[in-house]
Amino acid sequence: MDAGTRIELALERAIAHATDEAAPPKLAEAVRHALFSGGARVRPRLALAVAAACGGGDSQAAEGVAVALEMLHGASLVHDDMPCFDDAATRRGKPSVHAVFGAPIALLAGDALIVLAFETLVKGSAGSPELIAPLMAAVTRGVGMPFGIVAGQAWESEPNPPAERYRCAKTGALFVAATTAGAIAGGGDPRAWRALGHCLGEAYQVADDLLDAVSAASECDKPVGRDAALGRPSAVTELGLGGAVRRLGTLVEDAVASIPACAGDTELKELVRMQAVRLAPKRLLESVAA
Amino acid sequence: MDAGTRIELALERAIAHATDEAAPPKLAEAVRHALFSGGARVRPRLALAVAAACGGGDSQAAEGVAVALEMLHGASLVHDDMPCFDDAATRRGKPSVHAVFGAPIALLAGDALIVLAFETLVKGSAGSPELIAPLMAAVTRGVGMPFGIVAGQAWESEPNPPAERYRCAKTGALFVAATTAGAIAGGGDPRAWRALGHCLGEAYQVADDLLDAVSAASECDKPVGRDAALGRPSAVTELGLGGAVRRLGTLVEDAVASIPACAGDTELKELVRMQAVRLAPKRLLESVAA
Repeated sequence: MDAGTRIELALERAIAHATDEAAPPKLAEAVRHALFSGGARVRPRLALAVAAACGGGDSQAAEGVAVALEMLHGASLVHDDMPCFDDAATRRGKPSVHAVFGAPIALLAGDALIVLAFETLVKGSAGSPELIAPLMAAVTRGVGMPFGIVAGQAWESEPNPPAERYRCAKTGALFVAATTAGAIAGGGDPRAWRALGHCLGEAYQVADDLLDAVSAASECDKPVGRDAALGRPSAVTELGLGGAVRRLGTLVEDAVASIPACAGDTELKELVRMQAVRLAPKRLLESVAA
Repeated sequence: MDAGTRIELALERAIAHATDEAAPPKLAEAVRHALFSGGARVRPRLALAVAAACGGGDSQAAEGVAVALEMLHGASLVHDDMPCFDDAATRRGKPSVHAVFGAPIALLAGDALIVLAFETLVKGSAGSPELIAPLMAAVTRGVGMPFGIVAGQAWESEPNPPAERYRCAKTGALFVAATTAGAIAGGGDPRAWRALGHCLGEAYQVADDLLDAVSAASECDKPVGRDAALGRPSAVTELGLGGAVRRLGTLVEDAVASIPACAGDTELKELVRMQAVRLAPKRLLESVAA
């Protein structure tokens, strides 16, 4: 089974009971809307790929990690789109959760996804209870305080956020959670996999800054130019367009170089390079190369 | 050490790293504000009391449960007070989190508390890893979907919420989590402790409905009369004032009667009766008795 199908099936299994007929119908629909509206599943794919590269280990635990990461990412998007934050009416070309279900249900759907993420993470490790504590430590570090995505969002409410720490928390932390928790589930040493998550997280952020800065709304499917409008730190404002594209290239090469020797390192290096090509907006690469 | 001191110290320990100087200052302050603004610690006290009655078991695990429950309860209050829900400017006589820090930080503080709750729950069971899965199951059932407080809140967005299921989810579920998780940490059988949580949760809800219906704003420290204003189900609208007071008495007696035979059942029965007296607004009891 390919990784994409495996992730979709694992997500469906994980929310089946939570969204069954006992649940409040709007909340159940909102959770489904948040999870199944065309995400690229970047973080769960990364976690599964690292687990496989480490030798496989406990595949149920790896799926639990993959689902938990996608739910936590989804929760952060739902809350981030709400009127009190970005007030974004669309996400991935579809109406955002609060636009369809209202702010109260959006708020609760995010909360429910966070709870369900940890529930799924722990259930996934039923066969390897010794993995639960290290997996929880890796994942909560990526989402909570003081270093995770919640902290990353909160830096946006501070007058002078420390640029590096803000960037790491906002995007990098969940990528590091994906590589380290993937490694734990796969039987590897999580410390050897931090650098990969860190580089990919920053690469992803730079790619997102590029997309935000230059794409037309028709090309990318979320409201654009928000970083500049909201005065947020961005690789494009810092380095210029060409500089940001070069930075993206360097980060991807650093990511590949950081992959430790392991059973599946060749395949993983290939995969990282392939995924990286999809990160940068095509027209931009052409215009910078021209 | 008395239970109150034990809970405050455990809460302080649990948030120390999360709110240290690496964290965004406003978020850290908001989390502190949410946790240390005079809550009665009803749920963590209940969990510790049940664990003790069961024989003690793993006291670190019991403290992890206590802290997790208080954090999850705190998160639900912070989100519930937000403008898109109750829009409450005060909580326990103090400004609510969003009133002090703004809606974005309030939203994130709630999210951070949920993450930290599960982090603390798992860390607390480091010495008894076999407890983690059952503890997580008990606690997530109390807060998540389809039966927990998140679902309870979401029923308020449905046209005809099923009264019993709404009531159980909104308040009862977290009390059941307190008794069942407390029992697990104390080495007891969680199934024997569901009824106690259920009765106390409903008693607490009836007491809250009474308070909402009759208290003057100076007597209770949150905005009152909201149930009627928002058309929410309430024991007072259903049963009248006298009926609701009688219902409260019956529920407390049912709670006491439900306590299974165990090492500390006598002390626990006494404690439940003592706490129950504090639930109902005094003037109301006098006026109904008169």
